[in-house]
Amino acid sequence: MRSVVSGDVEHPTDASSQRLRPTSPDTITAEVIARLDACEDERLATIMRSLVTFLHGFVREVELTEGEWHDAIRMLTATGQITDERRQEWILWSDALGVSMLVDAIGHPFPEAATESTVLGPFYVPNAPERPYGAHLDEVPAGDPAWIHGRVLSLDGTPIAGAEVDVWQNGDNELYATQDPEAPETHLRGRFTTREDGSFGFIAVRPTAYPIPDDGPVGQMLRATGRHPWRPAHIHVIVRAPGHRSVATHIFDRDSDYVDSDVVFAVKQSLLREFVERSADDPDRPQGIQGDWWSLRSDFVLVRSDDTGELVDPGRTA
Amino acid sequence: MRSVVSGDVEHPTDASSQRLRPTSPDTITAEVIARLDACEDERLATIMRSLVTFLHGFVREVELTEGEWHDAIRMLTATGQITDERRQEWILWSDALGVSMLVDAIGHPFPEAATESTVLGPFYVPNAPERPYGAHLDEVPAGDPAWIHGRVLSLDGTPIAGAEVDVWQNGDNELYATQDPEAPETHLRGRFTTREDGSFGFIAVRPTAYPIPDDGPVGQMLRATGRHPWRPAHIHVIVRAPGHRSVATHIFDRDSDYVDSDVVFAVKQSLLREFVERSADDPDRPQGIQGDWWSLRSDFVLVRSDDTGELVDPGRTA
Repeated sequence: MRSVVSGDVEHPTDASSQRLRPTSPDTITAEVIARLDACEDERLATIMRSLVTFLHGFVREVELTEGEWHDAIRMLTATGQITDERRQEWILWSDALGVSMLVDAIGHPFPEAATESTVLGPFYVPNAPERPYGAHLDEVPAGDPAWIHGRVLSLDGTPIAGAEVDVWQNGDNELYATQDPEAPETHLRGRFTTREDGSFGFIAVRPTAYPIPDDGPVGQMLRATGRHPWRPAHIHVIVRAPGHRSVATHIFDRDSDYVDSDVVFAVKQSLLREFVERSADDPDRPQGIQGDWWSLRSDFVLVRSDDTGELVDPGRTA
Repeated sequence: MRSVVSGDVEHPTDASSQRLRPTSPDTITAEVIARLDACEDERLATIMRSLVTFLHGFVREVELTEGEWHDAIRMLTATGQITDERRQEWILWSDALGVSMLVDAIGHPFPEAATESTVLGPFYVPNAPERPYGAHLDEVPAGDPAWIHGRVLSLDGTPIAGAEVDVWQNGDNELYATQDPEAPETHLRGRFTTREDGSFGFIAVRPTAYPIPDDGPVGQMLRATGRHPWRPAHIHVIVRAPGHRSVATHIFDRDSDYVDSDVVFAVKQSLLREFVERSADDPDRPQGIQGDWWSLRSDFVLVRSDDTGELVDPGRTA
């Protein structure tokens, strides 16, 4: 074997090829963005340019190391592995990083007097049973009885008759019916229709605070950053009425733990309500309640709209 | 059933509870960031604050809709589903969005005269066979023979004897040995040691351009944004020498298609080299080559360091 090829035949660097800019963090970002010039979908191009800009901005600001990049890849991989038909860890990330509520806030700039929206959560099941005024939501024992009532109104104060109040909640075992193999499928779920004066009322149970699933990567993040996995006690409601925009929201128990620190950032001041303590001999006690009870009043104010707003789930984890 | 509870007992809005700020896109971001105050790991807190700031900045800038948010969740879910022990779609995203090269650029601010690093790619297998000076890299026919040679130097120009040049490449079927069930495991892989004058030389084949795996979400993104999945022809090299920082880099064929548009943005001007055409009767033809051949010269310049730099894979997809 000979040593071959003299250096003058070949040029390790090729000065004539000036097609490429020198490589630096800034030029990499510019190159990735320029590569999107061929994108014919203008909205997609806008989203991808912004995504690349902010993603690179993050990496540059923290000077992400290769080790940290590996940690990120491992975390993404683990999130994919724990996600299945019943567990949606991606939505959990979105919720726990406040992205779901941000998308909700951008998408629902309601007038101040209208009922504010919040996350739908993962436990909503369409077509809950229709129940009459004053009926029980619980089908098996699930906690202290609570009379939930109020009116559905249009923004100008007009009561809305025939509006649908679609409700679901957890019981005192912290679980929703969909999570609880012991519970009937329609337990703690129901749809109520408002009367002529816009009023609705039903017997629920006082909900408890509960933790989001925290045995995966999101739970690891919460622990590593000193955050807890709890949501304050709440009842889920979707209110629908013809000629109005639907709203998916919560009734929050203002006295619950974690009202100040909901892990998914879903609490809004305007959605806090008080559970009022009532005794068994209170003359207002509904017929369907025995013993001591709670009452809670919450009106819902809807915005007139030809478009009911296709209900898109802004978060399925809590 | 009576209509119960007069309005004066309960207060739909509770003016005394001023713990929560009004909800707007800006306050959501501030609230998520404030929640990180309990994080005791300062570096993690810095990373998470920056991540939340830039992630929310992206969502706000494009005013991401709920429908687009759902598309994003579906895309993340699909990426998790296609990822397994042999397919790493997360790294493919990192590569295709330029993040891998950005992390590489931040982590390797080499002096201008030193050989620049680039992505390691997914086809590196440690412990390639040690081969002598001038030996073949190919163990079965894999394309046009190419004599690859040069020297390993320290930044001050001193030749480095006993440096290791660890090489792997694809054949003219576009595949690396790890992808090709027909190929011997050590085909197109080898480790060479520099001689006293710092020189190395081996018989490779001229590599071809090839597409990254594009049957998953990253491929969908490339098609939707008008991008192609191709990498320009290159040979992978890791150069290691005692007392120097290791470098993982490529030798790029400057005449290859896609040099201007590598799908993973790994091309650097300083890494382009020319394959020079040689005839069978060229007096410099190495003994191991029959017929017409190519030659390519590439020196590697290393930076002195007590730390060889733990070699961390900055990208496993290409």
